[in-house]
Amino acid sequence: MFPKNAWYVACTPDEIATKPLGRQVCGEKIVFYRDGKGAVVALDDFCPHRGAPLSLGKVCEGELVCGYHGLKMGCDGKTVSMPGQRVHAFPSIRSFPVVERYGFIWVWTGEAEKADPALIHHLEWADHPDWAYAGGLYHVKCDYRLMIDNLMDLTHETYVHTSSIGQEEIDEAPVTTKTENGVVSTSRYMDGVMAPPFWRANLRGNGLADDVPVDRWQISRFTPPCHVMIEVGVAHAGKGGYNADPAHKVSSIVVDFCTPETETTMWYFWGMARNFKPHDQELTKQIQAGQGKVFAEDTDILEAQQANLLRNPGRRLLMLNIDSGGVQSRRLLDKLLAAEQTPAQPAAAAA
Amino acid sequence: MFPKNAWYVACTPDEIATKPLGRQVCGEKIVFYRDGKGAVVALDDFCPHRGAPLSLGKVCEGELVCGYHGLKMGCDGKTVSMPGQRVHAFPSIRSFPVVERYGFIWVWTGEAEKADPALIHHLEWADHPDWAYAGGLYHVKCDYRLMIDNLMDLTHETYVHTSSIGQEEIDEAPVTTKTENGVVSTSRYMDGVMAPPFWRANLRGNGLADDVPVDRWQISRFTPPCHVMIEVGVAHAGKGGYNADPAHKVSSIVVDFCTPETETTMWYFWGMARNFKPHDQELTKQIQAGQGKVFAEDTDILEAQQANLLRNPGRRLLMLNIDSGGVQSRRLLDKLLAAEQTPAQPAAAAA
Amino acid sequence: MFPKNAWYVACTPDEIATKPLGRQVCGEKIVFYRDGKGAVVALDDFCPHRGAPLSLGKVCEGELVCGYHGLKMGCDGKTVSMPGQRVHAFPSIRSFPVVERYGFIWVWTGEAEKADPALIHHLEWADHPDWAYAGGLYHVKCDYRLMIDNLMDLTHETYVHTSSIGQEEIDEAPVTTKTENGVVSTSRYMDGVMAPPFWRANLRGNGLADDVPVDRWQISRFTPPCHVMIEVGVAHAGKGGYNADPAHKVSSIVVDFCTPETETTMWYFWGMARNFKPHDQELTKQIQAGQGKVFAEDTDILEAQQANLLRNPGRRLLMLNIDSGGVQSRRLLDKLLAAEQTPAQPAAAAA
Repeated sequence: MFPKNAWYVACTPDEIATKPLGRQVCGEKIVFYRDGKGAVVALDDFCPHRGAPLSLGKVCEGELVCGYHGLKMGCDGKTVSMPGQRVHAFPSIRSFPVVERYGFIWVWTGEAEKADPALIHHLEWADHPDWAYAGGLYHVKCDYRLMIDNLMDLTHETYVHTSSIGQEEIDEAPVTTKTENGVVSTSRYMDGVMAPPFWRANLRGNGLADDVPVDRWQISRFTPPCHVMIEVGVAHAGKGGYNADPAHKVSSIVVDFCTPETETTMWYFWGMARNFKPHDQELTKQIQAGQGKVFAEDTDILEAQQANLLRNPGRRLLMLNIDSGGVQSRRLLDKLLAAEQTPAQPAAAAA
Repeated sequence: MFPKNAWYVACTPDEIATKPLGRQVCGEKIVFYRDGKGAVVALDDFCPHRGAPLSLGKVCEGELVCGYHGLKMGCDGKTVSMPGQRVHAFPSIRSFPVVERYGFIWVWTGEAEKADPALIHHLEWADHPDWAYAGGLYHVKCDYRLMIDNLMDLTHETYVHTSSIGQEEIDEAPVTTKTENGVVSTSRYMDGVMAPPFWRANLRGNGLADDVPVDRWQISRFTPPCHVMIEVGVAHAGKGGYNADPAHKVSSIVVDFCTPETETTMWYFWGMARNFKPHDQELTKQIQAGQGKVFAEDTDILEAQQANLLRNPGRRLLMLNIDSGGVQSRRLLDKLLAAEQTPAQPAAAAA
Repeated sequence: MFPKNAWYVACTPDEIATKPLGRQVCGEKIVFYRDGKGAVVALDDFCPHRGAPLSLGKVCEGELVCGYHGLKMGCDGKTVSMPGQRVHAFPSIRSFPVVERYGFIWVWTGEAEKADPALIHHLEWADHPDWAYAGGLYHVKCDYRLMIDNLMDLTHETYVHTSSIGQEEIDEAPVTTKTENGVVSTSRYMDGVMAPPFWRANLRGNGLADDVPVDRWQISRFTPPCHVMIEVGVAHAGKGGYNADPAHKVSSIVVDFCTPETETTMWYFWGMARNFKPHDQELTKQIQAGQGKVFAEDTDILEAQQANLLRNPGRRLLMLNIDSGGVQSRRLLDKLLAAEQTPAQPAAAAA
């Protein structure tokens, strides 16, 4: 259950640097590569000749050449040529709208005519000199919505991420959840607490004392179809918290693109964008490694949860106040899904 | 096809010593752990909040804490508490009757009100200073009834366990099978034979000559739902065989609990109880290692047999005299299964 | 979709040299072994006693002894004996017509009365002192017909086998395909080209210059149910090509038996028969190793193609002129399949 008419993060540029990439997104098997001008192309990963995956081929002078019998495929899904053949009558394969932006390759899996690049989720920290970003990719065997639930309810940090970002005060601080302008946000503020290990390291990394009380905040924002950005940070207590002067705080944005692969598997693009010491590459690597461990902990429990749910299909789950973020997120998703299943408007049909 | 109203060996105490254990028994996914007083608890392995397996959590002060969001589950399947939540209306999860006895954890997978601990299979050798026990656990991909067939027809020893306990005389000696008091027994006596390697080692282990003829016996006893105890031994020939004075024989009980996991997989708890040199721990280890090798041979052939039967679902097997033990065992099982499918008696309903 | 009434290569003699072999051919699980006179036997791999695979047993004095309870199976599928049992009423298991010829074991998976050994594909190079043969066996997860398509359209060599036998001139040379006497042949001739690496090595191996233009040929012949023999070779240009004197050429026969295992998996017996330097065993090994690498490249792409086709069951493929070999081959197969599904003739019924 995923909306098809949406922009999804499909891969990162390094994944198509030397050869085509075959990847399934929202149930569609797609081959990604760069054309002769360096623009990214996304096509059905199926050679019209004999059905071999085009992703096993290679790119020659900007054209994708099937690795089986040498059919040359154009960026529009029309065969360009094939040794000894007239190809004008060959059936086209599907071409997917695709855009490279913010350091990611975005693909639109639904109706091509609705694929407006202006709809791509704006990432204000991307391509900005004051910010650094690093992340990674995990394949997770769960419905992408279980990951969204996870990210919209950070009380799990106390139990899943005990030794890094978890702390008991998370459980005690109330959350506020609301939906505004198509974005669900859920926020939590913990004042005058001691920072957990991950944040102590970041305080030190930013030249701040790590053994004094801090004000900590977490603001998760869900944007359909599957993006969760979490503003997180700590400031020395009493300096204004979230609004403190940069001299007293460390903060960053946890970045999560939860791209569906199938109904029960997903591609998890995770990362962190930060605006302190953005040029310290050693720090970037440290944060990336630390975050990689933390998100692997989520992966384990989410796959076990998914297996348990598949085993108990009829069983209802609880929807507590802490689950509001996930509940409101699914409500937005359900609206999008319903809209896709509604037949075209009479007005549109008349036009 | 397994009776649900029965006590099954689910695990051994070492398996729940440091953390909860998730194990499927008779199709039920169960979490096992010890409460604050050290008593074993068995609950549905499904957190009522979001469906995560509770077995991924940990036990804190005798309460099981879900590893996802910290829900604390009570031993009765009722949620005790959860950070920031009122839990009295949370749905209960199923609690299974469970008893620790004889060095095993026994679980009842059927109707709780019928779970009388007095029905647990009595093991006369357990917790007895004159006896030593050691064993192991194998996961086997076969219907537990194929394992029972195997244990109730020891002619397979000649072919499967050629180099340890097999010998041709097993094939030649007739078996006697009968069902009495809900127990199927099948016995075989071989007089004046040379002992096979496993028994020679045990004769030596007990300080007896191993190069003289012996009288050998095997008495397999099946007790529903899935327990086979096999009295086995050898005595120097002419000293009375099974009834010989302990000075002239070595004997032991092969212990087999064939707990169903699913219709086509099982947990095989195997071991040996002996009353010679019970304090010789080195001998205990030797026997355990030897037995582990022997039972791994069974595992291979049983899994191949199961795969062959699944591939040929309609095909009927032979029921020979040597198969009587298995046939009579299944007859007892079929009665139990039929009884479970019969609706409650009017008399009971009236009461 | 495979004809059952046909001779299939099932295994090679070395595979049954020391113990029985269990192998699935055309959906039938079969055990292969040698009887007391050294003749190959093929039986249903299912012990009539308890269903264990007979291939787990061993051969004692020419009789197959089940590895579970010692049932002795005769070559005709009738039980010979079993310890302590009268076996005359035991049900027979199916015996398959089987012939050892040309260094292969051939099995007939259909109606036994139609199994005429004269129908076995004649291999003129086998058992001939002027020829050497070596090959190998791969298990491939694809419909055997995809392998036949592959072998009947060698334009794939340019793309799949770039560094060994591929060259662009293959694409440019036209092919001629025809069906005659139940054999589909497709031929291609390339005159005055430079030999690719595999053929250069063979030219050198045969003491011929490898840096001069050659005339190259490829003649694929499909014989039902699944055999493709490909005459391949190069001659120094202008010496007569295919018909050149042996002093000026190297040539060989690529041998492919594409035995179905299931609808979507197969056993690929590949090899090469050559009549130059047949006694040079070092050369034999070199060719075998080189060919093994080449055919592993096919395996990768065929398995990916099969997976893609299963994912897109309704999708039609193109049938180009280069595909004629595969198309005509399938036409022969379809006729055989249709004939098998036709009920017996009235005349036959009357007789």
